[in-house]
Amino acid sequence: MTTADLLALVEDLNRRDEIDGILVQLPVPAQVDSKRVLMAVDPAKDVDGFHPMNVGFLSTQRPGLVPCTPAGVMEMLRRSNIPIAGQDAVVVGRSDIVGKPMAMLLMNANATVTVCHSKTRDLPGVCRRADILVAAIGRTGMVTRDFVKPGATVIDVGMNKITDRAEFERFFRGNEKREQAFAKNGSTLIGDVHPEVAEVAGALTPVPGGVGPLTIAMLMANTVRAAKLRRAAAVPVG
Amino acid sequence: MTTADLLALVEDLNRRDEIDGILVQLPVPAQVDSKRVLMAVDPAKDVDGFHPMNVGFLSTQRPGLVPCTPAGVMEMLRRSNIPIAGQDAVVVGRSDIVGKPMAMLLMNANATVTVCHSKTRDLPGVCRRADILVAAIGRTGMVTRDFVKPGATVIDVGMNKITDRAEFERFFRGNEKREQAFAKNGSTLIGDVHPEVAEVAGALTPVPGGVGPLTIAMLMANTVRAAKLRRAAAVPVG
Repeated sequence: MTTADLLALVEDLNRRDEIDGILVQLPVPAQVDSKRVLMAVDPAKDVDGFHPMNVGFLSTQRPGLVPCTPAGVMEMLRRSNIPIAGQDAVVVGRSDIVGKPMAMLLMNANATVTVCHSKTRDLPGVCRRADILVAAIGRTGMVTRDFVKPGATVIDVGMNKITDRAEFERFFRGNEKREQAFAKNGSTLIGDVHPEVAEVAGALTPVPGGVGPLTIAMLMANTVRAAKLRRAAAVPVG
Repeated sequence: MTTADLLALVEDLNRRDEIDGILVQLPVPAQVDSKRVLMAVDPAKDVDGFHPMNVGFLSTQRPGLVPCTPAGVMEMLRRSNIPIAGQDAVVVGRSDIVGKPMAMLLMNANATVTVCHSKTRDLPGVCRRADILVAAIGRTGMVTRDFVKPGATVIDVGMNKITDRAEFERFFRGNEKREQAFAKNGSTLIGDVHPEVAEVAGALTPVPGGVGPLTIAMLMANTVRAAKLRRAAAVPVG
């Protein structure tokens, strides 16, 4: 598999009218230029929402395709009747896949948004201001109780695997269900949020079973949306 | 002048190799579909940096063209040796032209960035956290002393015209130079920042003569950059 092979495949999929969504599942083999392949995907079929054109559409509030994970978080907030407009939202992590589009969606929904990252001073202090706190850092249980204002909504986008017994005990000692699963599988999944946060948060998404399934659902939603947008664009204008 | 006329002109300019930069000076006549015209500009010649593709390039840190006003602010911060990484930056205003790209540039430079807007609760309080405060709201002298942490760097992007004598006196009473100019011209320019902020800020950009001239300089810089990027892209890749 070469870059040229993948480009040819993407171009074929771009051309075919019966294809509505294209997703390049990363990582691609090391010899493939992933950026070139991703850029080759027709923005109108880019159901991941990662193409710069869709990033620009999101920022400028034009119709386009929005990355699945942050779109799923918005869906979750809305369906749970969590107020967004006028709320203080803090997003920890500034990835292209989650942090930045998440911040943009929250801002477009009239939250006052702060984006934190590895260079942020007093991360717990900044996070404690949040009415809505989104953790998307990829660090096992890093968001502890002291990061969370009592009653805040905490969204845990992290998905980290624990295989070490001592680490397991640090987070899940006394949790029977987790103990059984860990004994059986030799591992368990944990987010970026420490389980102790459940004691202070007003609402907290579980890991696994929280943001993850929604991401997949939004991929389907994006595919339907892509189909509709393409049909709408295909209608001759006058 | 119709939308079709302007589209034809833009397409001609896109095609001509000796043209490196295209800028659609807004507002266009009411009957023209400005969004369609703006979208028609080749992103590689879009020296305003407003095309969604360039917005996406900025967000994903790919090489592209960056809107002039926020690019000028970054240039000013760097040349004045204002630290950015790890600093708390607050941007007031979330326009596509200034607020959003400004936030993105500051975030890319490792500041912890908060974007405020009309729905923000306790705007003075949020602004007071800022080491770097960027005001881009278009409201005459709205940012008063109580918005500013002593020693903070304050960037005034606003450009508002005062013609009313009482309003003039509220901001500039006792300022001889302004008095003379106002008496002569019947108007004066003021930013979004109240002049009293000079007493608390560590650094403050003047209006006029601060961000404005830099915006124009960056338009020239963008044109040179566009030329270089196009030449680089034209080099055959093996």
